[in-house]
Amino acid sequence: MARIDYFNDPNAPAANSVVPSVTAVVTDEAGRILMVHKTDNDLWALPGGGMDLGESIADAAVRETKEETGIDIEVTGLVGVYTNPRHVLAYDDGEVRQQFSLCFTTRMLGGTLRTSSETKEVQFVAPGDLDTLNIHPSMRLRIDHYVEGRATPYIG
Amino acid sequence: MARIDYFNDPNAPAANSVVPSVTAVVTDEAGRILMVHKTDNDLWALPGGGMDLGESIADAAVRETKEETGIDIEVTGLVGVYTNPRHVLAYDDGEVRQQFSLCFTTRMLGGTLRTSSETKEVQFVAPGDLDTLNIHPSMRLRIDHYVEGRATPYIG
Repeated sequence: MARIDYFNDPNAPAANSVVPSVTAVVTDEAGRILMVHKTDNDLWALPGGGMDLGESIADAAVRETKEETGIDIEVTGLVGVYTNPRHVLAYDDGEVRQQFSLCFTTRMLGGTLRTSSETKEVQFVAPGDLDTLNIHPSMRLRIDHYVEGRATPYIG
Repeated sequence: MARIDYFNDPNAPAANSVVPSVTAVVTDEAGRILMVHKTDNDLWALPGGGMDLGESIADAAVRETKEETGIDIEVTGLVGVYTNPRHVLAYDDGEVRQQFSLCFTTRMLGGTLRTSSETKEVQFVAPGDLDTLNIHPSMRLRIDHYVEGRATPYIG
């Protein structure tokens, strides 16, 4: 499903839904960050997605990371809470979803890196190489908060 | 609207919605915690409620605390993330809402303590006196996490 991100855009349509979502920071032994090249909007992002009914938000991080990258993780902490109402996602079925996303730190448990229907490339990227990828500013904000090593979670 | 809380109950109905919600820990200079006696379920709770479209989750904490208690606050930090899918709230219109709630620490800015249509009593309660009040276990969990002074937010 195609989507358009509106980020601090005064011409954004009014939101008509909110879906709790999650992103996961997964790092390898070299401190590189697991990034996915998304099929739906052609951008690079942290693995993640919307929470299903019947699972916790940490469950959703584990499931989405497995689905999108093949990697098994567990959640270890919280980078931040991202609920800026001026970030909305317009889908082609008329849904306009207000951003509501948590970003977790994680520990890798196993699995084998692979792509999926939602992700055409998956790879670990050194923080210094992130600028070579096309990353949405709202996603880059989360990655930057992780790299900063904040003592307390961002609340926004 | 009447509601029934199901908490780790195998006979709970299946959830059909999720609404991001918030509770606020507001303390006075003596370290007492602001508690509200709720009209809808007759229980004592932290001030809080559901996020409206167009506001952030921190905005919701500020608005709900003002509505329910008359007190102006700002958000200062996060006690925890509460998304246990085995906690559902059944409303008498057929909605079965899966819990999805953040709990914030706050700083009091002003205002005058008062009740509201949703809250028949509002008062600051010393942590040692909490056991005299009828508080739902899921709400008590958040208060206990605050009182413990955890270094990092609870994720559940």
